[in-house]
Amino acid sequence: MSNTFGTIFRLTSFGESHGPAIGGVIDGVPAGVSIDMARLQRFVARRRPGQSSIATSRNECDEVEFLSGIYNGVTLGTPIGFVIRNNDQRSADYDLLARCYRPSHADYTYDAKYGLRDPRGGGRASARETAARVVAGALAMQLLEKLGVSVTAYTSQVGNVKLETGYSRLDLSSIDNNAVRCPDAEVASRMQAEIEAARLEGDTLGGMVSCVATGVPAGWGEPVFGKLHAQLGAALLSINAAKAFELGTGMRFASARGSEVMDTFVCKNGVIGTQTNHSGGVQGGISNGEDIYFNVVFKPVATLMRPVETIDREGRQVTLPPRGRHDPCVVPRAVPIVEAMMAMVLLDNYLLHKTNHL
Amino acid sequence: MSNTFGTIFRLTSFGESHGPAIGGVIDGVPAGVSIDMARLQRFVARRRPGQSSIATSRNECDEVEFLSGIYNGVTLGTPIGFVIRNNDQRSADYDLLARCYRPSHADYTYDAKYGLRDPRGGGRASARETAARVVAGALAMQLLEKLGVSVTAYTSQVGNVKLETGYSRLDLSSIDNNAVRCPDAEVASRMQAEIEAARLEGDTLGGMVSCVATGVPAGWGEPVFGKLHAQLGAALLSINAAKAFELGTGMRFASARGSEVMDTFVCKNGVIGTQTNHSGGVQGGISNGEDIYFNVVFKPVATLMRPVETIDREGRQVTLPPRGRHDPCVVPRAVPIVEAMMAMVLLDNYLLHKTNHL
Amino acid sequence: MSNTFGTIFRLTSFGESHGPAIGGVIDGVPAGVSIDMARLQRFVARRRPGQSSIATSRNECDEVEFLSGIYNGVTLGTPIGFVIRNNDQRSADYDLLARCYRPSHADYTYDAKYGLRDPRGGGRASARETAARVVAGALAMQLLEKLGVSVTAYTSQVGNVKLETGYSRLDLSSIDNNAVRCPDAEVASRMQAEIEAARLEGDTLGGMVSCVATGVPAGWGEPVFGKLHAQLGAALLSINAAKAFELGTGMRFASARGSEVMDTFVCKNGVIGTQTNHSGGVQGGISNGEDIYFNVVFKPVATLMRPVETIDREGRQVTLPPRGRHDPCVVPRAVPIVEAMMAMVLLDNYLLHKTNHL
Amino acid sequence: MSNTFGTIFRLTSFGESHGPAIGGVIDGVPAGVSIDMARLQRFVARRRPGQSSIATSRNECDEVEFLSGIYNGVTLGTPIGFVIRNNDQRSADYDLLARCYRPSHADYTYDAKYGLRDPRGGGRASARETAARVVAGALAMQLLEKLGVSVTAYTSQVGNVKLETGYSRLDLSSIDNNAVRCPDAEVASRMQAEIEAARLEGDTLGGMVSCVATGVPAGWGEPVFGKLHAQLGAALLSINAAKAFELGTGMRFASARGSEVMDTFVCKNGVIGTQTNHSGGVQGGISNGEDIYFNVVFKPVATLMRPVETIDREGRQVTLPPRGRHDPCVVPRAVPIVEAMMAMVLLDNYLLHKTNHL
Repeated sequence: MSNTFGTIFRLTSFGESHGPAIGGVIDGVPAGVSIDMARLQRFVARRRPGQSSIATSRNECDEVEFLSGIYNGVTLGTPIGFVIRNNDQRSADYDLLARCYRPSHADYTYDAKYGLRDPRGGGRASARETAARVVAGALAMQLLEKLGVSVTAYTSQVGNVKLETGYSRLDLSSIDNNAVRCPDAEVASRMQAEIEAARLEGDTLGGMVSCVATGVPAGWGEPVFGKLHAQLGAALLSINAAKAFELGTGMRFASARGSEVMDTFVCKNGVIGTQTNHSGGVQGGISNGEDIYFNVVFKPVATLMRPVETIDREGRQVTLPPRGRHDPCVVPRAVPIVEAMMAMVLLDNYLLHKTNHL
Repeated sequence: MSNTFGTIFRLTSFGESHGPAIGGVIDGVPAGVSIDMARLQRFVARRRPGQSSIATSRNECDEVEFLSGIYNGVTLGTPIGFVIRNNDQRSADYDLLARCYRPSHADYTYDAKYGLRDPRGGGRASARETAARVVAGALAMQLLEKLGVSVTAYTSQVGNVKLETGYSRLDLSSIDNNAVRCPDAEVASRMQAEIEAARLEGDTLGGMVSCVATGVPAGWGEPVFGKLHAQLGAALLSINAAKAFELGTGMRFASARGSEVMDTFVCKNGVIGTQTNHSGGVQGGISNGEDIYFNVVFKPVATLMRPVETIDREGRQVTLPPRGRHDPCVVPRAVPIVEAMMAMVLLDNYLLHKTNHL
Repeated sequence: MSNTFGTIFRLTSFGESHGPAIGGVIDGVPAGVSIDMARLQRFVARRRPGQSSIATSRNECDEVEFLSGIYNGVTLGTPIGFVIRNNDQRSADYDLLARCYRPSHADYTYDAKYGLRDPRGGGRASARETAARVVAGALAMQLLEKLGVSVTAYTSQVGNVKLETGYSRLDLSSIDNNAVRCPDAEVASRMQAEIEAARLEGDTLGGMVSCVATGVPAGWGEPVFGKLHAQLGAALLSINAAKAFELGTGMRFASARGSEVMDTFVCKNGVIGTQTNHSGGVQGGISNGEDIYFNVVFKPVATLMRPVETIDREGRQVTLPPRGRHDPCVVPRAVPIVEAMMAMVLLDNYLLHKTNHL
Repeated sequence: MSNTFGTIFRLTSFGESHGPAIGGVIDGVPAGVSIDMARLQRFVARRRPGQSSIATSRNECDEVEFLSGIYNGVTLGTPIGFVIRNNDQRSADYDLLARCYRPSHADYTYDAKYGLRDPRGGGRASARETAARVVAGALAMQLLEKLGVSVTAYTSQVGNVKLETGYSRLDLSSIDNNAVRCPDAEVASRMQAEIEAARLEGDTLGGMVSCVATGVPAGWGEPVFGKLHAQLGAALLSINAAKAFELGTGMRFASARGSEVMDTFVCKNGVIGTQTNHSGGVQGGISNGEDIYFNVVFKPVATLMRPVETIDREGRQVTLPPRGRHDPCVVPRAVPIVEAMMAMVLLDNYLLHKTNHL
């Protein structure tokens, strides 16, 4: 349901942006696996706000407190409960917004659904919720690593600046070298400039994150309703501000001919593989042993640093002053969230796949 | 899991392409609703093969036999079991394929996952499976209608022919007037010519289906992992050959500025709405009362009417002769499947939404 | 939900007693397993009506038609759809009952829940539904056998005739030697006499079924909400007319002292085991390698062969004439259903257990 | 799965007995409901240890910290995260036990399942886990109260002292007047004496809890696999040490005749009801508007205050000294846990029932 993600490896998350804490429970974690807690903490830190001039000035240390499920650094097979305290809440910032509906935010829809909402900082609709995903994803990544699988995401578009080079010709180890998390330094600096320009105008920018998993063997995924890319689509589209998802050749399949985009099978060192990888590593909903890659598009965040016209609960016209602390472009901070979601989906499917045979 | 779709309103489907029958169980159907069985049967017929020269020549009447859950034309609240017999199976067509892997099909991945597969006509990986979805979707559409919700899909792209007009300026009642299911007659004839040209060359075409739901009130959807568009994404990407999904302004959000794509709230006849609808009717994962619309991209089907190079189970080079019966462009037949998936998601979320309040 | 049972190995069933058919979909079946179809059919036949003078005279051959998921006698890993036609429906028998509520039947509660019901033969509430369980259970038993696990149930009480001998001192291979399915011939004949006596008086009898699984290794089961015996309890109590469930020493634990019912650990041929087995093979919700055994109590079926006083939908007093075809004691026919439910639970937990480790 | 309970109203719990904290996430809580937080806290206190001489001397204040989902005392419809710190952990008490298997505890089965365990205080297998259930149950009870439903449990047996009076002739408001939670003062004092006697001998006692819900309207419950009493059975049997469950007339149905235990329908003030209530308020798996009542049997806790013979991981004979802090009879403290589980099941079924109609 709403606040649980996954079938076997499952994250159940909770928390409002400005409540005492956010957190979650990670269930279905295989037992007996050593976890590098410091590395996990560092992964989570990649998502946290206040990292650079292009991100929100909200200051959260995002220290994760683990409450169960790990004993002497080893997973017990029992659920891992964790909390992250909300320190820098500044609720006063948001008081005016309690009775108004910010455009393209979830204020109105929460009121429509629940009849009320926590108006402080977006409440449950805040992207702060994704911190819990990053915790679970960081754990999943450590487990996947032991299976030989690695997951890497990076910023591939910010506004009109687009990285045209495919992932296989990029140095993916350089992603965190710049604030926008783009593995091409030149494109990265243009992206950064684009963001600065938007910020100066009080505006925001959309963009795209690309993600690739290597080392996934053939056979993961559920072939009908749970096709691997359908699960990935749901996972990625559930991230705040995500609006489009494409696997492999994606949107460009629409104008393609079958003869152009067919992935011919070949033997690669005795292993069956494909010559090209238009399919993005998934055929019939099941991994085929090639890299799995996709793009996810994020809309520009709707909080501008300009006065904004809107209406209140009673339908009266209101002008909201420029306010709040928000990233002019959320895409760079979305990078670890994208990795986290992909890692959770892959690990879950690995575990499910174990049940396909007696 | 794999063969069950939905949370409250659920379809569990079964069936291989050339086994005795396909079918399913629809559970969670509200009780006491009159169903127009003839209309349901007609909706299912829209998906069936053999309808025109641009579709596969496989001839299936696709008569649905309902086995339970409906009494005197009224739903009982109990599960609706149904079967559709496979009549025209021609298994001999597929014998050679049993030991070879067709490019960009699921032959190899099924073998990798399960260790064996039903080689006849693609087995469970065949799009024949979608007939069960259309049955459940047709039922969902009749229930949604009673709630004032209607769902319509149409072909918006075939190869290089793209319908540029938005849905609101199209006559959506004319969709079934032509074989490609495009509501613009002129574009439709160009699409048809494109398909004919590909067919003559033994090639196939990708394309896009657009879909819109009207009448969905504000408040449906689950705001975190089950965001309405994440559920829709999963539903649509689970259709055979679907490779990309975008909600509202979709991919174009990547290059947009926040100030350009913000949906300003306004009062429309006393009801809160938005001036524009870049959001595609969903904000924070919850419907906002505006039309919900999206696009889904289908890759060109990978069965060409030409000889195809591939390998067999042992990795030996093989040339497959041109064969099989397949649509040169699956997009027109995907239209009712897209409607079916959207209808199931919406009805399920309507039912879930009832539990949000005491 | 209501009509789906299990987590990985799942049965989704459908069907009303007097509709065209009952059936189901078995999902999550491991691939590549040979199934003895004739033996499966014979297991199902053990449940069917009309087998002896002590059972209902309804005559159903209960031939299972498998529609998918098995190819050349081997499981494909895809869902197994099946139907069992309802042949001997005699709907006229039930017309009067449409507007009356039979005491201790589900007529009134179905009306209260759904606002309507299929009045023919109990509709969905009929025990005919359990035929689908027996199909799935028979399949599960064949898979369990390959894991060295066997499941056996038998009648241990009919009315006041109780089998006092524990399962370990009984010849469980002799269960089907008599119509009541009691492995002690002398007790069996007393049970049969008890049933005959009740039948002559137009009355019915309750009873108890005992069940034991051998060969389950230590480690199956989920230790918190999904404790193995909690899952078994739910499975067994979901059978029509089941009203109580006890594991191991069961009800007698209430009056016991800890020192009397503690299962001391010992080494048995180098394997850890327990000296006694009050726990019934489950400790902390997880199997401990000892036999798993339990009892389940069935109430006497509420259809008497006497006139019965009741009320109709409008609350008016009505006298129902003696009618319907029912077993004076359902317990013997419940034996294969009990085995089926236990087998499904065990197989599901075996598959779940595979996900506990990387 | 293992650590999540419920379908719509769901508790996901976490925590080891001697880790930093236990806690959980309650999802699916209807929005807009005022919660009396102080009363909730008092309900939780009923379960906590250290309340009287007959309970364990472990001293936990069990203060629940709510982290989300409630704003100004009103539910938001978002998940309610909560933690309860483990204060009095005394891990040293348990060091010896790390390599030994206590009889009739879960030490061995956890090792068999996971390959390791947290040896401190039983880890996840400790009944401390039930504190999370009581939090969710206390919340459920407040919501049920608004629907006119009340749930009450009490101790009905301790060792050989049994309360023979039925619930309808007891003063259920007096339950908390004595330490054993038995509503008959005379029987209560005999129970207390029985416990004292066992304690002096270093022994422990089993017992029974009875529970009744009043005010449940006809129509709740799922009629096939999710029969209301099957759900209750699973819920109750999942409590630590619970070993048997019976609904209504329960075990005594085995020796009954249909004519004796049939619940005749009558009109009570214009409402359909039954003259007797052998069915325990459930027919065909659905509530019938009568009181729902059941018994659940608890085995004597297996930790004696005497030396105990057992084996260690390597199968070597070991004598465990008398140790640990445990209740000589857990039944009185189980009373609020029983209420909690029943309340969760009922609320969940109320919410599910809302989806049965359009």
